[in-house]
Amino acid sequence: MQATRNVKIAGTGTYLPKRQVSANEMDRLLGTEPGWVLRKSDVSVRYFVEDETAAQMGAYAVKAALADTGLTFADIDCIVCTSGTMEQPIPCTAALIQKALGEGDSGTPAFDINSTCLSFVAGLDTMSYLADAGRYPRIVLVATEIASRGLNWSDKESAALFGDGAAAVVIERNGRPDDRSKIVHAAMRTYGKGAHLSEIRGGGSKLPAQSFNPDNERDFLFHMDGQAIFKLASKILPDFTRELLDGAGCRMSDIKLVIPHQGSAMAMRLLRKKLGIAEEQLMYITPEYGNTIAASIPIGLHEAAKQGRIRRGDRVMLLGTSAGVSLGGLIFDY
Amino acid sequence: MQATRNVKIAGTGTYLPKRQVSANEMDRLLGTEPGWVLRKSDVSVRYFVEDETAAQMGAYAVKAALADTGLTFADIDCIVCTSGTMEQPIPCTAALIQKALGEGDSGTPAFDINSTCLSFVAGLDTMSYLADAGRYPRIVLVATEIASRGLNWSDKESAALFGDGAAAVVIERNGRPDDRSKIVHAAMRTYGKGAHLSEIRGGGSKLPAQSFNPDNERDFLFHMDGQAIFKLASKILPDFTRELLDGAGCRMSDIKLVIPHQGSAMAMRLLRKKLGIAEEQLMYITPEYGNTIAASIPIGLHEAAKQGRIRRGDRVMLLGTSAGVSLGGLIFDY
Repeated sequence: MQATRNVKIAGTGTYLPKRQVSANEMDRLLGTEPGWVLRKSDVSVRYFVEDETAAQMGAYAVKAALADTGLTFADIDCIVCTSGTMEQPIPCTAALIQKALGEGDSGTPAFDINSTCLSFVAGLDTMSYLADAGRYPRIVLVATEIASRGLNWSDKESAALFGDGAAAVVIERNGRPDDRSKIVHAAMRTYGKGAHLSEIRGGGSKLPAQSFNPDNERDFLFHMDGQAIFKLASKILPDFTRELLDGAGCRMSDIKLVIPHQGSAMAMRLLRKKLGIAEEQLMYITPEYGNTIAASIPIGLHEAAKQGRIRRGDRVMLLGTSAGVSLGGLIFDY
Repeated sequence: MQATRNVKIAGTGTYLPKRQVSANEMDRLLGTEPGWVLRKSDVSVRYFVEDETAAQMGAYAVKAALADTGLTFADIDCIVCTSGTMEQPIPCTAALIQKALGEGDSGTPAFDINSTCLSFVAGLDTMSYLADAGRYPRIVLVATEIASRGLNWSDKESAALFGDGAAAVVIERNGRPDDRSKIVHAAMRTYGKGAHLSEIRGGGSKLPAQSFNPDNERDFLFHMDGQAIFKLASKILPDFTRELLDGAGCRMSDIKLVIPHQGSAMAMRLLRKKLGIAEEQLMYITPEYGNTIAASIPIGLHEAAKQGRIRRGDRVMLLGTSAGVSLGGLIFDY
């Protein structure tokens, strides 16, 4: 098996909606006592869209990632949207991002890869093989998420977790022998028995949007059985992570930084405790962003690079769980 | 660039809903005069789901493809759902298919790739690199589509085209030097300027399902500007196909069979005329299935193999357009 890919994370960019929502404002929106949201979620601030669309946010994030990399759109061979939410049922969000970039005449291939919160990791893992093979030597992956439109405000604990935002990451085939940036190893597991532990039941072919009425509104909003997912993840995540490290031929102590999906503060504590991750090894951005679905990991990657918490040559682990239920992880040398 | 992949189409399977809908019944459903549907669409029969879900249909198609290949589920390394419609907004349909297969404990990775009607071609093209690299030596791609739930029955010409159905295709790394089955070349182009020519506007983050009411129902139903897409496709498809053939180092006359997306009878006539495809070179299954979105090409592939229209060693072209607007094509030696 070819595990290593000569593919480099060339640059990153993000876009956050204009509207900042503090924990206090969130208490007012949810009707909880002041301090409840911060205590329950540890989210000090998150962002909610006003007039922004997912495609616009994605386009801004792509522009930021191109600027970070010193590239222009013409240098990009493929656009892959790796989001857990979509702007429209048809067409795919990547095509709408291409249009929002003003590049609707370019012909640049655009499609979506979806594994809910793990969409970015699945997309990076998958598309790096095509970058390495030279099919698409340079790819931009975009996660652009509007969680705020699908929250169930009566499920306060779940609603308190989420935020909107977008991140883009340019990856490229690494042809320079002196540059040791690469993807070392990746793994994914899906356990469909947990498919309904975290879901939005309505809005697809099973329960179409046209069947919406005020009495079945809950079916069209995000539902999560946090306890059951926590229990499942606690059981399977340690072995999964051990196998991921074994595949990369290294130990947790060799990892400079773990950038996890920011599912919740509780999930972050679980990760540290169960996997033996030191505090300085964990990228924890829940307080500044909340859970931004699939944008969470690439926002963490962007922040880690900008804050200097990772430098070229450092070994980094991306790790997360998603609805499905899936586990995903990827180890790369930055 | 690595264009050729040592990957073989190992087996195929389909599932069609129990309910057959004849052209005459469709005339009654649409309120058109007897004969109108057949004359306009050339669709003699299509299938509409009764109680089937997309995941169940997908699971049946996977079982059929495994039986065709002489394999069991345990032989499969990854499940990729390549549909233009989804069963639920969360989680991805591939996880629901895994559960519907009774394999929810398997851990087999499952995620979705979406490029509307070209999802199967984009998924086959993309995932074949991972099969070739040995990351997932054997992959099942599943397209499972329920068009009937999103049709705008007052737009009779568009509604007359569609049908429901599912198809699964097992691909595997070809390790046998005496077996010359391979993927020769593939290409994709997306022109986001046409993103709104074929769409369902409502049901994603831009216009959430909860904003549905009887007055905005049209926003939640499929809309297609057939004339504009036809015009765009007529202009760009000939060059695209020429480049696809050039990339494969062959001519149209070397292609045993072109298996196109069955967009409409009109689209099929356009293909034949503009691309110089002989009648016996074109897989035309619109009369028996209608347009089954992304399931259309793998159903065509399945039928071509079962009917003996392709045999091992034959060179085959998959070709289509999708909402986005995208063009996609893939040439393989069966």
